[in-house]
Amino acid sequence: MSHSNINVKDDEIDIVIGALCSDLTSFMNDWRPVFSRFHLIIVKDPDLKEELQIPEGFNVDVYTKTDIDRLVGSSSILFYGYSCRYFGFLVSRKKYIVSIDDDCTPAKDKDGSLVDIVAQHVTNLTTPATPFFFNTLYDPYRKGADFVRGYPFSLRNGVQCALSCGLWLNLADYDAPTQALKPELKNSRYVDAVLTVPARTLMPLSGINIAFDRELVGPALFPALRLAGEGKLRWETMEDIWSGMCAKVVCDHLGFGVKSGLPYVWRTERGNAVDSLRKEWEGVKLMEEVVPFFQTLRLKRTTVKAEDCVVEVAKEVKEHLGKVDPVFGRAAEAMVDWVRLWRAVGSSSS
Amino acid sequence: MSHSNINVKDDEIDIVIGALCSDLTSFMNDWRPVFSRFHLIIVKDPDLKEELQIPEGFNVDVYTKTDIDRLVGSSSILFYGYSCRYFGFLVSRKKYIVSIDDDCTPAKDKDGSLVDIVAQHVTNLTTPATPFFFNTLYDPYRKGADFVRGYPFSLRNGVQCALSCGLWLNLADYDAPTQALKPELKNSRYVDAVLTVPARTLMPLSGINIAFDRELVGPALFPALRLAGEGKLRWETMEDIWSGMCAKVVCDHLGFGVKSGLPYVWRTERGNAVDSLRKEWEGVKLMEEVVPFFQTLRLKRTTVKAEDCVVEVAKEVKEHLGKVDPVFGRAAEAMVDWVRLWRAVGSSSS
Repeated sequence: MSHSNINVKDDEIDIVIGALCSDLTSFMNDWRPVFSRFHLIIVKDPDLKEELQIPEGFNVDVYTKTDIDRLVGSSSILFYGYSCRYFGFLVSRKKYIVSIDDDCTPAKDKDGSLVDIVAQHVTNLTTPATPFFFNTLYDPYRKGADFVRGYPFSLRNGVQCALSCGLWLNLADYDAPTQALKPELKNSRYVDAVLTVPARTLMPLSGINIAFDRELVGPALFPALRLAGEGKLRWETMEDIWSGMCAKVVCDHLGFGVKSGLPYVWRTERGNAVDSLRKEWEGVKLMEEVVPFFQTLRLKRTTVKAEDCVVEVAKEVKEHLGKVDPVFGRAAEAMVDWVRLWRAVGSSSS
Repeated sequence: MSHSNINVKDDEIDIVIGALCSDLTSFMNDWRPVFSRFHLIIVKDPDLKEELQIPEGFNVDVYTKTDIDRLVGSSSILFYGYSCRYFGFLVSRKKYIVSIDDDCTPAKDKDGSLVDIVAQHVTNLTTPATPFFFNTLYDPYRKGADFVRGYPFSLRNGVQCALSCGLWLNLADYDAPTQALKPELKNSRYVDAVLTVPARTLMPLSGINIAFDRELVGPALFPALRLAGEGKLRWETMEDIWSGMCAKVVCDHLGFGVKSGLPYVWRTERGNAVDSLRKEWEGVKLMEEVVPFFQTLRLKRTTVKAEDCVVEVAKEVKEHLGKVDPVFGRAAEAMVDWVRLWRAVGSSSS
């Protein structure tokens, strides 16, 4: 089977960047061949003091602390650090969002060509996903591929894909202990595949390089779990992992697919893993509580909208995890606030 | 993390080949660099009239119709066609079995080197599997890889891997309708990855290129489902798909992992897909009944041995699928006979 994404217009896509460093000149110039056709939303980390430097020639809206304070006001949701990007998700009015960390540059594929992450993410989102049966030859909708013998024909139409999780070359998304133990460990393997993460299988969603259908699952991508010692480095955060588990459960419940694999970005190093070790430890511990919770979580059949799913998950979190650690109670509260904001801002009626 | 398989001795491995064509000369010579160190079991398809031609220089035991008749006698299990290989599984006394179709030759990896399927399968089987949480960077035990941020530490030890399913370049394992519709469709994409198929996710196991730990799941790899119009071409068979679903359910139940991906073999064309279309149709139809059955099948907690699992699955098949189509009743009977044979031949007490 083969599909194309010629039916997606450029103006159906927002590219959202959370700016954690002020000088975006080389970042933007590196991405110019890929990003220049699209509307960009850049959200400045409220902690960042310096003026943003953004080169000419982009169609870009910049949001700062002032915009966040005006729209959000007082809330349990904090848009500091990596969480600033979520403000971009909130104010977008487009069907598709592609979001990349500002320490990533374009990767090259096996032929040495620059990887167009927007094209690949949109292909992932606009071709079906196959969460109910595993295809051993990976994405059956890719050119040159198909379903293998034994794949049930009734499942070959697949389901809508709502979330596309890309990967990273060079500096992989390891946690601080792994990175500190193996500082030389780099990911150099370009795996030329996209696959659907099966239904009811959880994964560590990394927010570094993702895209999603905002109309289908936008409300399920939010900053809610904030570690006490959270910092400005990826391995010091858990907000994307937490939101990713929630998004996966919501996709499973609503019958949408989640894909992982291509496209790759090239990640450059930032920070010192050993310094981060103490902060990260809390996140590592929390996962041991979080995973069994999400693995057994089942939503009500009558909950059929992503935003209602999030509210229901928040209720369960408060009830079952709230007593384990206060961080979960705060996360539940932030999730409810997020949905309230989502509705207030009008994102739900796109 | 990185592991090696230096702890597996050559004499712990049997290579099992079902001979569907009589002249194995070029097949064996092509595989000589990989196979010559190991003990081979070649089982001649009982339908095959001509003498087998096997070149010198291999440590090989050949089994024919005479051996099958003597050992199996009268039974519901038929060892014709691709099913002859299972006789090799039965008589093996080794811990690991690698089994390859006789229309496959060694593939080349991305660097142009010959793929050593035995080494890769043994690596897959002797490094842990991770069925309970998906690692986005694929096999975390591979050299240069690890678990990504957010992967729960309590799950990083993984579980034993019992079954390794390799893939195919050139002629992929499509069904007859797909092959007939797209005769030009070849698989040329070398995906440099191994992954664990998550728990409770079913897959179309292809018997073309597999390896397994005979002590752990040997009893779950059997020839039981035989189509009325079954032929000598892969796309005319379902025996491996059926057995594979059973093996996956047994692995999930016993807490063992199943991997898919590397190693690749190169498959050469055999047969005419259009001629096969009529025969295949039965298999395609049957899958629609089979998949929901295996997806909802749960075995008793008290069933803790692979052979007992197979007997329990057979009982459920007879009860729930037997009325749908007589082919399932016969499959259930063959599964019970298989376990009886497995015990009688002494395979269970290795």
